[in-house]
Amino acid sequence: MTQATELYFDFLCPYAWRGVELAAVLKEGGEAFTLRHYSLVEGNHAENAKELTWRVTEQPLDEGSAYQQGSLRAFLASHAAALQGEAAHWAFTLALFRAHHERKEPLTDDTIQAAAQEAGLDLNAFTAALTEEATRRAELRAELDAAREVGVFGTPTYVLPTGEAAYYRFETLTREPAQAREWWTLYTTMLTSEAGIGTIKRAKNRPPRRA
Amino acid sequence: MTQATELYFDFLCPYAWRGVELAAVLKEGGEAFTLRHYSLVEGNHAENAKELTWRVTEQPLDEGSAYQQGSLRAFLASHAAALQGEAAHWAFTLALFRAHHERKEPLTDDTIQAAAQEAGLDLNAFTAALTEEATRRAELRAELDAAREVGVFGTPTYVLPTGEAAYYRFETLTREPAQAREWWTLYTTMLTSEAGIGTIKRAKNRPPRRA
Repeated sequence: MTQATELYFDFLCPYAWRGVELAAVLKEGGEAFTLRHYSLVEGNHAENAKELTWRVTEQPLDEGSAYQQGSLRAFLASHAAALQGEAAHWAFTLALFRAHHERKEPLTDDTIQAAAQEAGLDLNAFTAALTEEATRRAELRAELDAAREVGVFGTPTYVLPTGEAAYYRFETLTREPAQAREWWTLYTTMLTSEAGIGTIKRAKNRPPRRA
Repeated sequence: MTQATELYFDFLCPYAWRGVELAAVLKEGGEAFTLRHYSLVEGNHAENAKELTWRVTEQPLDEGSAYQQGSLRAFLASHAAALQGEAAHWAFTLALFRAHHERKEPLTDDTIQAAAQEAGLDLNAFTAALTEEATRRAELRAELDAAREVGVFGTPTYVLPTGEAAYYRFETLTREPAQAREWWTLYTTMLTSEAGIGTIKRAKNRPPRRA
């Protein structure tokens, strides 16, 4: 585990989706990644700017809540899926991301159940794990607190085994191994450069090209 | 000129200093850069967040002004130096950056005069150009407005001849050609990657290494 790159993501985020797809391709090629959760709604809310005044893990599951925007149900389901092993967790995570960002389905219970089925989960065990809601919330809280330690502010953020960590926002989805490797090498080269690069960020009126 | 990369900078900024030093090294190697001004104080002020409610070019030269923080005098001097040609402008810009960020001298008239001398400017012509203050302010305004068109928000920001533009923040000063070339290639590769990279930004609690 200590050699794996941690990948912080939120199901709400289309950039996180592309980041998880990138990692999934690299994982096939032998690169190790661990899935981790970060809540954009909790982390970027104005009321939480100075200190944490409320927590997504203490919100109701009501999808209309402005304090979690449907993300909480997806996070808890992700923890429930993780109990079935790493492969099951990745399959579920990719299935739910694709449902939400590729097929534009909402993060409802129906979508989550369909993703669990698509991922080949043991559905009875999945449902049982979801009913242990307090435990799933506690697992999520631990990861959100870990993200705060790192200073994650957006998704995807990768934390390399060497401790380097940065947000990586890109527009183009790839499932092509050579391309995924190239984009990953570019990112890690930047993070480990002797230049001590803190930020490269596109000027506001010059959006990145879409391939 | 159309083949040159535009480099937006503010004398207040230590990252812009390293960015200008980087460009100066690359320029020796044949890469073309044009110096351009961007005001961090004007651009990042809360009162200017939605629209421009005040302009640094309309502020008094008083160094204590919160609305220009000593940057205006340096900008006008930079335009005065530019009248003596490109080489003179680069020499003055580097001299003033080094005085302010390497030797920690304030951006006062004395420091500016010393930088002009160090850069080998014609001091009488320089002084005369500074007295044509309205013209220098108008030249500066044109560049600040151009920066707004690009959506510059920080310095250094480079605008490539192909139109790609991004803020590039790094910690390490280099005057070594191979290193400068490596760091520039990394930046331009990122900007032109088919990934469509918008941002790579270090997590808040993981500052970049200093070499």
